[in-house]
Amino acid sequence: MDGVMTLEGVLADRGAWKAERCSIKRALDVVGTRSAVLLMREAYYGTTRFDDFADRVGITDAVASARLRELVDAGLLERRPYREPGKRTRHEYVLTDAGADLLPVLLALWQWGDKHLAGEEGPPLLLSHSSCAAPLTVQVRCEEGHEVPLEEVSVRLPRSR
Amino acid sequence: MDGVMTLEGVLADRGAWKAERCSIKRALDVVGTRSAVLLMREAYYGTTRFDDFADRVGITDAVASARLRELVDAGLLERRPYREPGKRTRHEYVLTDAGADLLPVLLALWQWGDKHLAGEEGPPLLLSHSSCAAPLTVQVRCEEGHEVPLEEVSVRLPRSR
Repeated sequence: MDGVMTLEGVLADRGAWKAERCSIKRALDVVGTRSAVLLMREAYYGTTRFDDFADRVGITDAVASARLRELVDAGLLERRPYREPGKRTRHEYVLTDAGADLLPVLLALWQWGDKHLAGEEGPPLLLSHSSCAAPLTVQVRCEEGHEVPLEEVSVRLPRSR
Repeated sequence: MDGVMTLEGVLADRGAWKAERCSIKRALDVVGTRSAVLLMREAYYGTTRFDDFADRVGITDAVASARLRELVDAGLLERRPYREPGKRTRHEYVLTDAGADLLPVLLALWQWGDKHLAGEEGPPLLLSHSSCAAPLTVQVRCEEGHEVPLEEVSVRLPRSR
């Protein structure tokens, strides 16, 4: 496997630039920890309550609290008050549109883990499309509809710069 | 945004199970750090030499060394000897097929960062398909070809279990 991306124009001289403004790096500022990603997985599964998040991800309350606050601050989750009869007000954490937009990241990790780390037991959980029951995949495609492997990806600066 | 995944069969009672064997979690054991992901980005850009990896990602030699070793051990990069005339043997780090398979993860982070964190300046770098020049996206699709949003994702146990 020797194919890599094609760096176009002024990017072709890789030694002459660094990825200072990088969208991957910025995304990792928000979801660059293991616990943040697993909390988002739980939100996708329908978890909303603090205790359930901490318990299901297997992290301490302190870590869950810090991480959930970061995800709220970054706009991936919304913190909403709720109150059960006779109890004090608590908060639940609900996905925002920006949080739901992270789906391809989590499913791409899922797909890679299924393919490369599931071993002989096979994938622990299967993903399908609710309305037609067909299996899911995460795909890199261009607007013309072609599937695009790594060696056919080109990177360039926007024309305005 | 209130839609989440549908948990099917025995998974429907979320309180009765935890994601112990989880492909996302396993994938994060390998690429769950910011520096591992950024090193993979650099490998996709064509970086192969130790000094370039450390410099371009902006990490210390010690961190780069530990992280690259983990990526080699996990089978995402291959360490190969090379030798320039008059110098001692050094090693370069080259992508494996398993490393290239991680592409949807990195491009999904990229796409999310472009959409949610690029601000008024817009995306810093543009991705396109080398052979047709059309822009790329990372998509969740089923085998019937439908695009699948979060609220249409179903999760179930394999039939054998």
